[in-house]
Amino acid sequence: MYAPQPFGCRERLLMTLLDHDRIRAVVWRDGSLELLDQRRLPQCEAFLRFNEAPAVAQAIRNMVVRGAPAIGIAAAYGVVLAARHAFATHGDDWQAAVRGDLQCLAAARPTAVNLFWALARMQRCLDALAPNVDPLLALLAEADAILAEDIAANRRMGELGAGLIDAGSAVLTHCNTGSLATGGFGTALGVIRAGWTAGRIEAVFADETRPWLQGARLTAWELTQDDIPVTLLAEGAAAHLLRQGRVRWVIVGADRITADGSVANKIGTYGLAILARYHGVKFMVVAPSSTVDMALASGDEIPIEQRAADELLSVGGARVAADGAGAWNPSFDVTPAALIDALVTERGVVLQPDRAKMQALMGDGV
Amino acid sequence: MYAPQPFGCRERLLMTLLDHDRIRAVVWRDGSLELLDQRRLPQCEAFLRFNEAPAVAQAIRNMVVRGAPAIGIAAAYGVVLAARHAFATHGDDWQAAVRGDLQCLAAARPTAVNLFWALARMQRCLDALAPNVDPLLALLAEADAILAEDIAANRRMGELGAGLIDAGSAVLTHCNTGSLATGGFGTALGVIRAGWTAGRIEAVFADETRPWLQGARLTAWELTQDDIPVTLLAEGAAAHLLRQGRVRWVIVGADRITADGSVANKIGTYGLAILARYHGVKFMVVAPSSTVDMALASGDEIPIEQRAADELLSVGGARVAADGAGAWNPSFDVTPAALIDALVTERGVVLQPDRAKMQALMGDGV
Repeated sequence: MYAPQPFGCRERLLMTLLDHDRIRAVVWRDGSLELLDQRRLPQCEAFLRFNEAPAVAQAIRNMVVRGAPAIGIAAAYGVVLAARHAFATHGDDWQAAVRGDLQCLAAARPTAVNLFWALARMQRCLDALAPNVDPLLALLAEADAILAEDIAANRRMGELGAGLIDAGSAVLTHCNTGSLATGGFGTALGVIRAGWTAGRIEAVFADETRPWLQGARLTAWELTQDDIPVTLLAEGAAAHLLRQGRVRWVIVGADRITADGSVANKIGTYGLAILARYHGVKFMVVAPSSTVDMALASGDEIPIEQRAADELLSVGGARVAADGAGAWNPSFDVTPAALIDALVTERGVVLQPDRAKMQALMGDGV
Repeated sequence: MYAPQPFGCRERLLMTLLDHDRIRAVVWRDGSLELLDQRRLPQCEAFLRFNEAPAVAQAIRNMVVRGAPAIGIAAAYGVVLAARHAFATHGDDWQAAVRGDLQCLAAARPTAVNLFWALARMQRCLDALAPNVDPLLALLAEADAILAEDIAANRRMGELGAGLIDAGSAVLTHCNTGSLATGGFGTALGVIRAGWTAGRIEAVFADETRPWLQGARLTAWELTQDDIPVTLLAEGAAAHLLRQGRVRWVIVGADRITADGSVANKIGTYGLAILARYHGVKFMVVAPSSTVDMALASGDEIPIEQRAADELLSVGGARVAADGAGAWNPSFDVTPAALIDALVTERGVVLQPDRAKMQALMGDGV
């Protein structure tokens, strides 16, 4: 019923003509890492410049950069900065000196596994280097490769995911999973870009995504930049929307996917999956294979980040909640595989994911 | 399994000792209607004074006063103001002159039926008056009666609803249904006040309730005034909370209940009801019988107010969403009776409401 339907010639032509991919949130420029400050969007488009790894870790923690793939890419460039600094100050002992910075980057946020995946890949590259050779070019090439592969994976997932969507569909997405959350193009938003361009998606609804308002601030900004109309709604309105029957797919990203196909993603995703199932709306998760953590047997093992109460109690720096109120602010939730109709990765589409299909997708846990 | 368990002696004593009922949002004072401006809470506690009905209608529309029962009460006093003005300016023709103001009040908001219920009751009182007698005292007595009966109904519902809750329960509520939304004490929040006081409720969670943040601004303010600890969460976090098994009841109010037991209430309620059912959490609706509209056969007939996009796109007057984004901002949704475990009114508790039970509760549609 919803097996992928490959793009036809006209859809491919449309995809070629309209290249929806102008935004870059993580950029290596003039020997520094630059991050588009996502805390200030959409009011202000400003890049911050980084030359030291601890500052990159702090930027990940503070959500200057966010989104599982983008965090991993930023951390990879953080390792480049760490190695350059260590080589300049510690000479042949530079590899030992990098370790502290790697730990600092790894401690920045707990849930998205792409961070640890990218650091492990940079570590392997680093281990292969001779101690007396300047590591900059080799590590920079590896970070650039991580970035380029992420964009390529997103474009592949965009086409695969859009292939699942019938022409004339409305879709609902949550949080931000676009160019801002990745190397570029996006995961779930990449599918929406591709589906819109190919003429399969006719309307895009986006949760505003409290408390950080990634939907209202970031997803709406990205889509309007691409001239894709977007209609925001409060999370509380999602059930009422799905009941109306226009939305065919809920499409989300992921921060970590476990060996049983459970998906950790932005808080609110799990509830959306339940509401989608209740209304007979299909639920699609789009994430590169770097998001899959086969070392965790089930979603119960995923560490869920709790963020500061103030994220919920204030908006734009102004207190909105009554004094004395407490807050419960988990940043992620876990959606069991049984609620997922399609998991789209660059390796292929898994319908109704389960442990066996995840194993088949990922091979030996790589 | 969850039939009402009447309060014991100790619970009654606790209820007597702790009178959680200090807040009044709709007050007749010194010959004027005063409304606590709920747009400015919790930062500022300020009453606005009204002497003309059109201004009261505008205050209802602008949400100076909100909450189905409170809207009805404010409109009742609006009729008092209308009649006083008409009698002073039109003499014996005053009753005809009131009609425009009644229509203006009725047009203020479409979904909560308490508004029309209160206006119809005031109209009956008005029809019984002689044209040459000053109507002020009779109409004021009727409005005062509507207010007093609402508070009495809330206290009765508080005890009935709390009787359904096992000791040691955590509960989740949505929007604001307390003294601010009613004559005093509250509907769903009245049950929570009574259940907390009686020692049956041990923790209160409240959705922040986007876009208007009734939970964060109003419910949290009311509960902290009463020294009842409250933990706020984003609507998106509700499923993750319910999955943890601590919350036993979701408790909400209502804006209109139809003959089949369908419940219109603040947007987000329907989704919560689905999530509660999915997790085996009970779902309670608390509303006075003035909220029941037996003239509507089903929930599909309830007019759902769409409010301005700016409510969603801005917070506290500051734009948060990206320019160019659209918004879908329905203020209410409809929960079918099949998702409701208990409907609590001052006339009694209806478990698993349906058309027959609603008919039995309401008699001849009164």
